[in-house]
Amino acid sequence: MAAWSERLAGVRGVLLDISGVLYDGGADGGTPIAGSVEAVARLKRSGLKVRFCTNESQKSRRDLVQLLRRLGFDISEGEVTAPAPATCLVLRERGLRPHLLVHDGIRSEFDQIDKSNPNCVVIADAGEGFSYQNMNRAFQLLMQLDNPVLISLGKGRYYKETSGLMLDVGAYTKALEYACGIEAQVVGKPSPEFFKSALQDIGVAAHQVRVPGGAALSAGVGGGVEGPGRGSLGLELGLRGRPDCWV
Amino acid sequence: MAAWSERLAGVRGVLLDISGVLYDGGADGGTPIAGSVEAVARLKRSGLKVRFCTNESQKSRRDLVQLLRRLGFDISEGEVTAPAPATCLVLRERGLRPHLLVHDGIRSEFDQIDKSNPNCVVIADAGEGFSYQNMNRAFQLLMQLDNPVLISLGKGRYYKETSGLMLDVGAYTKALEYACGIEAQVVGKPSPEFFKSALQDIGVAAHQVRVPGGAALSAGVGGGVEGPGRGSLGLELGLRGRPDCWV
Repeated sequence: MAAWSERLAGVRGVLLDISGVLYDGGADGGTPIAGSVEAVARLKRSGLKVRFCTNESQKSRRDLVQLLRRLGFDISEGEVTAPAPATCLVLRERGLRPHLLVHDGIRSEFDQIDKSNPNCVVIADAGEGFSYQNMNRAFQLLMQLDNPVLISLGKGRYYKETSGLMLDVGAYTKALEYACGIEAQVVGKPSPEFFKSALQDIGVAAHQVRVPGGAALSAGVGGGVEGPGRGSLGLELGLRGRPDCWV
Repeated sequence: MAAWSERLAGVRGVLLDISGVLYDGGADGGTPIAGSVEAVARLKRSGLKVRFCTNESQKSRRDLVQLLRRLGFDISEGEVTAPAPATCLVLRERGLRPHLLVHDGIRSEFDQIDKSNPNCVVIADAGEGFSYQNMNRAFQLLMQLDNPVLISLGKGRYYKETSGLMLDVGAYTKALEYACGIEAQVVGKPSPEFFKSALQDIGVAAHQVRVPGGAALSAGVGGGVEGPGRGSLGLELGLRGRPDCWV
């Protein structure tokens, strides 16, 4: 394996996934993945720009950061790129008033958004909120719209909790897409716009960044953003979450 | 419009859909679609062979027939081709032991099937049973199987109840297909085998049958079974359910 300094030649920043890479969530709040707390600390000491880039959509950024800090991570809210704030930008830009099919933990992110007389549906990982009644309400609303707009916070198939694998928002988005005969607009990974906004936040070009972590690869970041480097950086850093997926 | 006798030249049988064609379901049991009770009676008087071919998967055949008889239809259990009994044949033939993600109303159809140590998932229109917990249990089981088998009773996008449009099994099947990276096997419309079994039951060839009704067209029966005639037979019969879909 090439030396640390050699592998990092030309690298100015790192995008880090959170769930499944830094920690595994669970009913107890979750547990850090072995080595990840130290890896983040080492990255920050190295002078690389670090951006946490997550599709987490059950918790607000504030709650997520508080949890990670309790688990020992050096992280602040301003370092996190998450789909809910990005969605709020899209909603405002396009004059969309959402019906929210989301987890209660993330509802506060939409406090400042007009939700009267909805003209679109925003779907996120609602967990137990994916009841038949809630899905059907979103479906009926979409079917009533002349121009149905479905915005999905990510398109993950599933994620891992300490209790096992859990269906993610992508599965439920597929259900609504099929029932309504429409295609959702994804905000979050693997949307190239999402990664670009994270790069802009740290002022680093795509070819200067590394993306260690499983979700990034499975979500297709290599194709989504031109130039992000692949390699075994994650292993070198001591990040061992989803080892079959390191980029 | 051609005369009744002319349009029926060479026709020996009729496959009739039930939900959305003969009646609209609902919390109150449902209501007959105007003209449909008389249309069934007229068909039977005409000497044509009649087979009721439904994807109904919230009720057992017995409960469905009892309901339809209460609504005034001349129908018996032996005249109905439904996906649950067809699924039981498939399960027995292939030695499959299902985990059932189905409505309680249809569970009795599987009473004689070994459900211990499941090696497949059978999904039907579970209605309120499509909770996150139930979906996740089916998902986890499929992910644990070396050769995951998902059998779906139909692939309808939605159906109409008196209270409005309702998400159908097809949407939830898509969710599991996407999450697991598999393709479900459909028993029920639009599976050609399903229509063929209905034709066998009345001893009529595909080119000798007419399929008036909306669901048949939307489910692609025209392509699924070679030769079923299309036309305005439904209108002539006085069947007015889903008029934009008559075949």
